[in-house]
Amino acid sequence: MAKSWENPRSAHKTEPSDAYARAGVDVAAGNEAVARYRELLSEWRHPGQLDAIGGFAGLFQLPGDSTRALVASTDGVGTKVLIAAQLGRYGGVGADLVNHCVNDILVCNATPLFFLDYLAAGNLDPDVAAEIVRGCARACRAHDCALLGGETAEMPGLYRVPDFDLAGTIVGIVALDELPKIESVVPGDAIIGLPSIGLHTNGYSLARALISADELNESFDGATYADALLAEHPSYYAAVRAIERVATVKAMAHITGGGLLENVGRTLPEECKAIFEQQRWNVPPIVAELVRRGKLDAEERYRVLNMGIGFTLVVPVCDAPAAIAAVADAKVVGWIEARAKGEPRVTVHPARDDR
Amino acid sequence: MAKSWENPRSAHKTEPSDAYARAGVDVAAGNEAVARYRELLSEWRHPGQLDAIGGFAGLFQLPGDSTRALVASTDGVGTKVLIAAQLGRYGGVGADLVNHCVNDILVCNATPLFFLDYLAAGNLDPDVAAEIVRGCARACRAHDCALLGGETAEMPGLYRVPDFDLAGTIVGIVALDELPKIESVVPGDAIIGLPSIGLHTNGYSLARALISADELNESFDGATYADALLAEHPSYYAAVRAIERVATVKAMAHITGGGLLENVGRTLPEECKAIFEQQRWNVPPIVAELVRRGKLDAEERYRVLNMGIGFTLVVPVCDAPAAIAAVADAKVVGWIEARAKGEPRVTVHPARDDR
Repeated sequence: MAKSWENPRSAHKTEPSDAYARAGVDVAAGNEAVARYRELLSEWRHPGQLDAIGGFAGLFQLPGDSTRALVASTDGVGTKVLIAAQLGRYGGVGADLVNHCVNDILVCNATPLFFLDYLAAGNLDPDVAAEIVRGCARACRAHDCALLGGETAEMPGLYRVPDFDLAGTIVGIVALDELPKIESVVPGDAIIGLPSIGLHTNGYSLARALISADELNESFDGATYADALLAEHPSYYAAVRAIERVATVKAMAHITGGGLLENVGRTLPEECKAIFEQQRWNVPPIVAELVRRGKLDAEERYRVLNMGIGFTLVVPVCDAPAAIAAVADAKVVGWIEARAKGEPRVTVHPARDDR
Repeated sequence: MAKSWENPRSAHKTEPSDAYARAGVDVAAGNEAVARYRELLSEWRHPGQLDAIGGFAGLFQLPGDSTRALVASTDGVGTKVLIAAQLGRYGGVGADLVNHCVNDILVCNATPLFFLDYLAAGNLDPDVAAEIVRGCARACRAHDCALLGGETAEMPGLYRVPDFDLAGTIVGIVALDELPKIESVVPGDAIIGLPSIGLHTNGYSLARALISADELNESFDGATYADALLAEHPSYYAAVRAIERVATVKAMAHITGGGLLENVGRTLPEECKAIFEQQRWNVPPIVAELVRRGKLDAEERYRVLNMGIGFTLVVPVCDAPAAIAAVADAKVVGWIEARAKGEPRVTVHPARDDR
């Protein structure tokens, strides 16, 4: 799944994941599409469009205001919608989507302004539509973000009943002098990790390939597989703001499709690499279960799943103690080292029992 | 298909269309969903959210700038995507989508700033994706609008091959004192119509029910049914700007799903109604063909199809000659009359041969 079409292809992104291929997702095709989009952008680019930070969101210079930029991102919730539709559990996907979008623009330090949803189904059930949009409204309100509108489309012939798709667009704002100063990242900086609570909104095609529909309501980790799979994508907005009050945040990353391996490197300077040490944090049980069932090797698991880290922040090492004290579950999960040309941008040292 | 979830339900919107029902679209369900969304909005509304003009787009007060608002709209291209996918003709849907969105925010007199697309398919073909996004890029460039990003999602199990869905979000800007002054509309004002060139992006579920897949490449109106059905949704941006230079434009409407009957009334004051006289303009052949095949009665045809008018502008009658002189195909297509309580907001007098 191509994250955003500003997504730069990292040097080590050429090997398609076996795991995803087994699940019917062609990662190479996604990367190729993104490369084509970038060719398009090279033909003409609006002068108001600013360089994106790692491709998590687009930046647009606010007309008539040289100090601020609008920050926008469009995303979906992947095939998590199919699990929600199958189980008739619609309450969470709206919040999944809004929180995903909030986190994407948070990488640019943006404050959300408004959100719009796109909901499409083969057969429109007003109760279902309202439940989905209610989830969007709840998550918007939690961020003081307007739910400004949207489109609800009934498209017979495209979507099977009860399937639906859900996507959304967020627009935020940032003062240009508050953009993360990526170029200030240096070897020795610490990487703070904020925990994920499961798959969030990525890896569902793989999950559906590994956990059958019949199993969803079976017991798992004190609840059911369905509960674990439908757990809501958390917003890291409050945690990041709390850390920013006590630490200099130089770079951030939202760990979505592509995992630590592909998301962290995109917001680092060329001459820096990130080293993660898996034994410093826990892997959520549902993620560990997919690793086990799919026999995912170390490369695959860190490229396809978030493996327990939902958001990362790079801070000076001297700020790390204050940063982790500011947020209950924040941990130092890695550090920055000097990168020689051709070296991977991100390396994860697996936990001892995974080697 | 619910246009936007700010879309106010007009008084005469309670009768579901037979034609749409035959095509598998439940207009009543769409209206019910919109009503539910409005309940949600009544629970909490961001103070920056301004009253929308007719629900074509959302307005958000630009923080720290009391003179301007951002104007945003999300839309799709309906099941036109299924015809494009079936025929492998992907070049136009991107422009359809961008132009649709441009027209939606143009109702608020907004100038486009940027656009983001959402493209989802079961099996991602980079060539197809690039062709679709190229269409978006072309239409964005024509409006000096940045193509700021987007999401390309491969979702096996949700979309059949070669089906895809395409939606997008546009963000524009408007000076608050340049918003159309709806309250200035008075009986006697003229309604200028800009011609449609076919279905644009609405009515495709009906079209697919009435014109079989096997017929698409057959001759029709000097080309083929496919050509007529895939003709691009035009942008009315340049025409509207040309008219604004010579006439006071009091209200505008983009004629999409809901036709003249539902789209024009939403931007008129309560005490005004619009009267259209069908003999003043031509109906595009493909639209006339659907009316004929579907045996659509007068009510249905003006509620389900644009019937030849793509965009309307209300101007003082004394400005009408200058307005129609400013744009080649612009015509006076109707006028404003006083509306008594309970009267329809819009009446169309059919052409003589349709009565």
